[in-house]
Amino acid sequence: MKKVISLGDVMMRLSTPGHARFVQAENFQVRYAGSEANVTAALAGWGIPSAHITRFPENDFGRAATEALRKSGVDTTHILYGPERLGVYFLENGAMQRASRIVYDRFDSAFSFIKPGMINWNEIMQQACWLHWSGITPALSQGAADVCLQAIESARKHHVPVSGDINYRRNLWQYGKQPLEIMPALISMSDMIVGGVTDFENCLGISAKDFESACKTVMKANPAVKKIATTTRESISSSHNKISAQLFNGKSLLKAKTYDLTHIVDRVGAGDAFMAGLIYGALQAMSDVDTLEFATASCALKHAIEGDVNLCSVEEIEALVRDENVGKLLR
Amino acid sequence: MKKVISLGDVMMRLSTPGHARFVQAENFQVRYAGSEANVTAALAGWGIPSAHITRFPENDFGRAATEALRKSGVDTTHILYGPERLGVYFLENGAMQRASRIVYDRFDSAFSFIKPGMINWNEIMQQACWLHWSGITPALSQGAADVCLQAIESARKHHVPVSGDINYRRNLWQYGKQPLEIMPALISMSDMIVGGVTDFENCLGISAKDFESACKTVMKANPAVKKIATTTRESISSSHNKISAQLFNGKSLLKAKTYDLTHIVDRVGAGDAFMAGLIYGALQAMSDVDTLEFATASCALKHAIEGDVNLCSVEEIEALVRDENVGKLLR
Amino acid sequence: MKKVISLGDVMMRLSTPGHARFVQAENFQVRYAGSEANVTAALAGWGIPSAHITRFPENDFGRAATEALRKSGVDTTHILYGPERLGVYFLENGAMQRASRIVYDRFDSAFSFIKPGMINWNEIMQQACWLHWSGITPALSQGAADVCLQAIESARKHHVPVSGDINYRRNLWQYGKQPLEIMPALISMSDMIVGGVTDFENCLGISAKDFESACKTVMKANPAVKKIATTTRESISSSHNKISAQLFNGKSLLKAKTYDLTHIVDRVGAGDAFMAGLIYGALQAMSDVDTLEFATASCALKHAIEGDVNLCSVEEIEALVRDENVGKLLR
Amino acid sequence: MKKVISLGDVMMRLSTPGHARFVQAENFQVRYAGSEANVTAALAGWGIPSAHITRFPENDFGRAATEALRKSGVDTTHILYGPERLGVYFLENGAMQRASRIVYDRFDSAFSFIKPGMINWNEIMQQACWLHWSGITPALSQGAADVCLQAIESARKHHVPVSGDINYRRNLWQYGKQPLEIMPALISMSDMIVGGVTDFENCLGISAKDFESACKTVMKANPAVKKIATTTRESISSSHNKISAQLFNGKSLLKAKTYDLTHIVDRVGAGDAFMAGLIYGALQAMSDVDTLEFATASCALKHAIEGDVNLCSVEEIEALVRDENVGKLLR
Amino acid sequence: MKKVISLGDVMMRLSTPGHARFVQAENFQVRYAGSEANVTAALAGWGIPSAHITRFPENDFGRAATEALRKSGVDTTHILYGPERLGVYFLENGAMQRASRIVYDRFDSAFSFIKPGMINWNEIMQQACWLHWSGITPALSQGAADVCLQAIESARKHHVPVSGDINYRRNLWQYGKQPLEIMPALISMSDMIVGGVTDFENCLGISAKDFESACKTVMKANPAVKKIATTTRESISSSHNKISAQLFNGKSLLKAKTYDLTHIVDRVGAGDAFMAGLIYGALQAMSDVDTLEFATASCALKHAIEGDVNLCSVEEIEALVRDENVGKLLR
Amino acid sequence: MKKVISLGDVMMRLSTPGHARFVQAENFQVRYAGSEANVTAALAGWGIPSAHITRFPENDFGRAATEALRKSGVDTTHILYGPERLGVYFLENGAMQRASRIVYDRFDSAFSFIKPGMINWNEIMQQACWLHWSGITPALSQGAADVCLQAIESARKHHVPVSGDINYRRNLWQYGKQPLEIMPALISMSDMIVGGVTDFENCLGISAKDFESACKTVMKANPAVKKIATTTRESISSSHNKISAQLFNGKSLLKAKTYDLTHIVDRVGAGDAFMAGLIYGALQAMSDVDTLEFATASCALKHAIEGDVNLCSVEEIEALVRDENVGKLLR
Repeated sequence: MKKVISLGDVMMRLSTPGHARFVQAENFQVRYAGSEANVTAALAGWGIPSAHITRFPENDFGRAATEALRKSGVDTTHILYGPERLGVYFLENGAMQRASRIVYDRFDSAFSFIKPGMINWNEIMQQACWLHWSGITPALSQGAADVCLQAIESARKHHVPVSGDINYRRNLWQYGKQPLEIMPALISMSDMIVGGVTDFENCLGISAKDFESACKTVMKANPAVKKIATTTRESISSSHNKISAQLFNGKSLLKAKTYDLTHIVDRVGAGDAFMAGLIYGALQAMSDVDTLEFATASCALKHAIEGDVNLCSVEEIEALVRDENVGKLLR
Repeated sequence: MKKVISLGDVMMRLSTPGHARFVQAENFQVRYAGSEANVTAALAGWGIPSAHITRFPENDFGRAATEALRKSGVDTTHILYGPERLGVYFLENGAMQRASRIVYDRFDSAFSFIKPGMINWNEIMQQACWLHWSGITPALSQGAADVCLQAIESARKHHVPVSGDINYRRNLWQYGKQPLEIMPALISMSDMIVGGVTDFENCLGISAKDFESACKTVMKANPAVKKIATTTRESISSSHNKISAQLFNGKSLLKAKTYDLTHIVDRVGAGDAFMAGLIYGALQAMSDVDTLEFATASCALKHAIEGDVNLCSVEEIEALVRDENVGKLLR
Repeated sequence: MKKVISLGDVMMRLSTPGHARFVQAENFQVRYAGSEANVTAALAGWGIPSAHITRFPENDFGRAATEALRKSGVDTTHILYGPERLGVYFLENGAMQRASRIVYDRFDSAFSFIKPGMINWNEIMQQACWLHWSGITPALSQGAADVCLQAIESARKHHVPVSGDINYRRNLWQYGKQPLEIMPALISMSDMIVGGVTDFENCLGISAKDFESACKTVMKANPAVKKIATTTRESISSSHNKISAQLFNGKSLLKAKTYDLTHIVDRVGAGDAFMAGLIYGALQAMSDVDTLEFATASCALKHAIEGDVNLCSVEEIEALVRDENVGKLLR
Repeated sequence: MKKVISLGDVMMRLSTPGHARFVQAENFQVRYAGSEANVTAALAGWGIPSAHITRFPENDFGRAATEALRKSGVDTTHILYGPERLGVYFLENGAMQRASRIVYDRFDSAFSFIKPGMINWNEIMQQACWLHWSGITPALSQGAADVCLQAIESARKHHVPVSGDINYRRNLWQYGKQPLEIMPALISMSDMIVGGVTDFENCLGISAKDFESACKTVMKANPAVKKIATTTRESISSSHNKISAQLFNGKSLLKAKTYDLTHIVDRVGAGDAFMAGLIYGALQAMSDVDTLEFATASCALKHAIEGDVNLCSVEEIEALVRDENVGKLLR
Repeated sequence: MKKVISLGDVMMRLSTPGHARFVQAENFQVRYAGSEANVTAALAGWGIPSAHITRFPENDFGRAATEALRKSGVDTTHILYGPERLGVYFLENGAMQRASRIVYDRFDSAFSFIKPGMINWNEIMQQACWLHWSGITPALSQGAADVCLQAIESARKHHVPVSGDINYRRNLWQYGKQPLEIMPALISMSDMIVGGVTDFENCLGISAKDFESACKTVMKANPAVKKIATTTRESISSSHNKISAQLFNGKSLLKAKTYDLTHIVDRVGAGDAFMAGLIYGALQAMSDVDTLEFATASCALKHAIEGDVNLCSVEEIEALVRDENVGKLLR
Repeated sequence: MKKVISLGDVMMRLSTPGHARFVQAENFQVRYAGSEANVTAALAGWGIPSAHITRFPENDFGRAATEALRKSGVDTTHILYGPERLGVYFLENGAMQRASRIVYDRFDSAFSFIKPGMINWNEIMQQACWLHWSGITPALSQGAADVCLQAIESARKHHVPVSGDINYRRNLWQYGKQPLEIMPALISMSDMIVGGVTDFENCLGISAKDFESACKTVMKANPAVKKIATTTRESISSSHNKISAQLFNGKSLLKAKTYDLTHIVDRVGAGDAFMAGLIYGALQAMSDVDTLEFATASCALKHAIEGDVNLCSVEEIEALVRDENVGKLLR
């Protein structure tokens, strides 16, 4: 059975227990996560064969990260290993009005030293039914940007659909290139894009007054792009957000239900849960409306899960779309 | 001083820490709980002499369960021990829209092998001021159903008031009998019943358009039943419920205050806390109105307690009835 | 650089994990805290040189309390050590409608045996830019009351501004004196007071219909007092409060924004965080309006911090005043 | 069935996790323990009906201590409650060459305010088959010493055998009396004594060159004393001790096996486990040799148990006496 | 690449923290383990492709057990799922003279309902380079015994070497058959056997005065059996064992180094680590001497690992064989 | 009062709980440590005024590391802050024959970017009574090596004694220079050196048949060096080492007692505890014999302490030198 392929770095995630601040922490909880692998991990949990492509240090932490992916059901047989380090990110859970914080210590990761030629994309794409990338990869190093481009080109050659999460972050992009030099080529060959107005401004140089007009401009310039989606988050507090989403399919702008998210457990990875939902909808040939609602419910439920990966089942997500079992005690 | 007697199985309760899902759990918290014993444990905490009748495996887990009851102040001297296993239930705390889940692994427990003749009800009822049973017991095995019937018959013979929590659960009842073959006799000899419209439909074959009319039909057919009460729960999310309750005393339908329960800690056992409140009111000769408010406040406060048993004091419950000290910091 | 000086007892704080009740607790979390030291610890975290004056047992717990203050950045070189015990307070975190509770076991602490002459206030005040005391100290023992008076007199002699948090607690004051015999002298020499209508009634014998008129009466009788502030708390539940504050500066009554505090993490020390904010504003020569808003935001954010001390930075507090970054995920 | 009665204070035991020092501890583990109650708790675990007499504060910690005893199976119905505090002791587990340390904070406990007349010894002794006291009780206060004397006198009157663990600790005895003013009367009415040469020197004024000659002198002066036993401990390190014991029965000095205790888990309460073993042997009419070996094996196994109370079963202890199952994996 | 195939049940392992007894445990640590899967998990960690065949409940615990195997690198694609339960075993870690204990609650597991025809052995054996079974499987149910026989027959047909760990446990074998009715056929078709004198007595009816003569008798009767190995354990205490091993290869009896195992962390699964070492040696074409030393060192190092599976690397095991790096701090 | 000054990097220390391997760890314990700061932290705990010089990132982890030093009593007022990262080291505690492991992730730390001119050594040395450096600092970067040289030169100019712990580690030294290019100058200006035969070979190019002859050659070539000391460790297992030490004072070779260290808690930092003991002896004008025994006992006791810093008191160390209180329970 063909697989969803994701490409990207995976980091050690070190989070403070409960609501402790970094300076209070006596312990960090250890997990392994990365935006693109979070997507395939969710898909694997939903029964979709998936594989992640990355490069890890050949030490115990590379091994632990591999095991974490494998536990999720993600195929790790294409992972490369090298002598460098594993990136780390530190997470301080906010509470109430106090913001959550992430401190990255990810430079010089083994993945950032990836180079074209290290991966046999031709072979991989023969077994692929989807390729997913995000804007984090081309932001890390020239090598990573080159490998990302190769992957997308190979996917198109093999008629494998491509999704990209633009995920623009200014603090990355420190190797000398600007997003506008790299991102347009990657986006132009993608079928499905997650991004918002500021993403398009920073990565495509497109200014637009709202999401719909931005989408239209993007699609006009990039005919390969068939669908663009984005989430909208309102932060009442760290413990209380509202989330919704929109999808433009070239014709109409679809809007999803809005979820009131009180008592948030962990919001990191919610965007990846949304992305996974979009891919799931596409692979299951759901309608655009159903896809968007599934992806938004996936995003909403991720806030109730500890860690970066949405561990809710398809049944749970679909029940939420139908407003069933909400907050029940199921015996 | 005479005692409240409860009869029923007690299981090992294994719950995931924080909001972890079952597949994430590295540890389970261990407690020992059962619907009927939860009632006597709460009553013992309120100063009411109480004893629980059950059958445990004669191993360390039977011993641990005995110690847990004893810690609560429940008399354990009538407990039987046999060679079988202790039932287990696994609890995954929900959060936000994600439902909570209980997985039972309770078949073939030592209690399910209980048989008539094992317990000297005559002796026990001479020291009893109340008998409490629930619909879980007759659902477990023919032996348990028979013992439950014997207990109730003995209570009536000794003029000991009887309460029954119908607690209908379809997944139980796997030993060959249907509720309608067993439950009517048990209910017909009970003075106080907790149950709702669907309970009466499944266990008495009574269809009714609402709680009040159901109660009237039940009481007409079962003249021993003097009071019927039920709780009403609205689930906004796993973290936010609203709870209220009603009591029909043969004359009028009383309605309790509604409590807005945000930030729920643990809802398991809330019904048992309600039941305990009803029995407490009866034993203290409270008015029906006061009894219902006390029981509802007990039910509400249980949601703020970790574990199955309401550990709030009479003073705390009565203060909540009066809207005092709500959410204060008492020094 | 001159220092803020605080005087007062510091206790071992033992709190139950999560929402466990005292009788359930298998572990207590250990911290060291006291109302006045909480104030200087917050100020030290904001870059204000600070020192705390107290008396500890010369055992490991006195050493641990010293280290806790030192970790916060508070100068501990003036701390005295004696043969007695460290006071303890036990904290049970409430949840929902269930109240939080503090049980004190603080009598006969080493601090309560402090006596005039033990501390060279003259030397300390030469290095001081502020003195902070609270009504807890004079409530503990005659010696503590005498030392508090000496400290304030010395501060005035050296033109060091004085703040006092009246903090009236009936359960203290067990050494034979009544607040009205002791507090008026201490208040009369203070520049800034935190207190409310009942504080003034109990400690100054002043009855007033509201805060503003109470302030006017206090200031008339105590011309040294230039500013009086107080917080207002509304308890919807243990997990949900609303907090605001007022400041009377002799001319007008200023009112701060009201914060809706859902999902409270730990409310203990919120008053101390408010006090610290007032002193910070004064030392930074903020306007009264800005000082009040800073102090109120500090108080609000403290509810999102585990432990007694506000660990939020000046930048975080100022952002909340401006309604920025509320509940965001900052990368 | 008649009960073993113990009299004495019970404290909150707060111990550091793992091998942390006091100044490192972020958490303390909470237990409730006292030398005399440790004895009855072990006996109750072995199926001997037991009751403990003490006085607790009428707060949550007195309630928690009561529940801890009840969990162990000890009858708590005679416990008194008063307004004072619960004593506390802090335990730092040593390791290797580093010693373990206990810091007591037990003065002014509710028990220390016990007074003659508070307890109806006549009634209690009618249900008693044994009375156990230790030298800690008369060291705490005049009232406690008086109550201890009353208890022993009442026991003798009712022909209830009495055991006393001399347990001399210099740091106690701060209320004005010296051991030599109090202890001789208590010892003179006891049937079985645990104590060593220095205990007899401090509490009876008897100097002796060795244990046997001390025993002879004690018995000569105190004809009621029929048996004296003591343990001998060699400390290679905190993790490695050797333990043995001797018993003098008026005729011969019996010596028990020596146990090599490597990898010690918790040595606190080992003497109480020895005492419990002696009483068990007496109640079961074991020979002196068997009693001594049972008591010594109980003492040895206590070192493998977390907490103050020996939780090993009679079967486990008897197996160790026979050198069976040592260090096995029993399935 | 061809795989090592193991067949057997996997249970939830619930162990008490630290040295707590079952009755003290507030938490259980959760792992998933089974004798045969422990073998393939170790092999997978050493880079040997491996797959486990079992049957799990189709609930969250079957999913969690699958994920645990997958994390270890074991192929889980052949696992079956059914409606029944997952077996559980409870582990109490001993300490010092106190024995460790395991309580099984494994009856009626989903695996015990396995039946011939459920697994396509023909297909599996085409991809297999080794089959491993143990005497636990045929002890569980007739169906499991039948499936085990089928697997071995299929392996022989495909010329796949077979290893069997006799692992005789009297408490199993409750479905009506005796070991002597079932085991001889299974052993007779195995190439490599782990077992000792009592195993052969119970499962083959062979009495022998020592291991060597037993081996000779077994091999004479079962010409397919080429190698028989066994470990020898001396228990000084739960924390201190000595371990060695022997291997008879039809010609000579080889004896491995003896390891002095002080400070044991977890001995469960040590036999499985030995078995894995034997298979590894066979697959790597090591000499019998080297294989035995590797397997024994693997067994020894397992005692230093938490959980059932040996997580030490080939390099670590080989270093121990050479007495290198023992107890060092490697930077 | 003048201070001991240490210079060096401080890292975040992340260690696995209990005996978990890196790949098993769900949590890491967080501490902050560095070889040179460990020395001053121990000295501060013994009452010696001490300050540490380093450069931290100006983020929460730099702040947390500062607070950790401050908690220990080390003066942190000279610490610099810059934009880079904090180094990390991961620690896996070994057990039995399994070795402990440290994985460093320390390149590009803020300290490695330190440059001459950043620190005013002249001012610092005026307040100094001792300077301590180690061979780790010059191994990190040219800037660090230069700053280390400046510090030593400044110390000599101000007649401040200098100690250096050669601490040769091959894996460091990656910035282009070799130890022999850098270390000789630093050693030549130090009064007291800790190092062994291989250290001198790698850092001074001196080959010697034993420690004594190495010392003589070092001292001949470096007349400023007055004392050279080293520890000798024998590893029976990770849980059992033997430790001793030697000191050559130019005249004779002194040998310390050998300590048998069974049940090791944490060996990291034992060398730093030895170094701290040597400095303490020098500052207290102990004899060479007493200094060596104090330092060796400090080193031995460190193995009983969790974390890098010896938290044992001078009294505890001196008692061990005298063989007192070893493994006792001190009340």
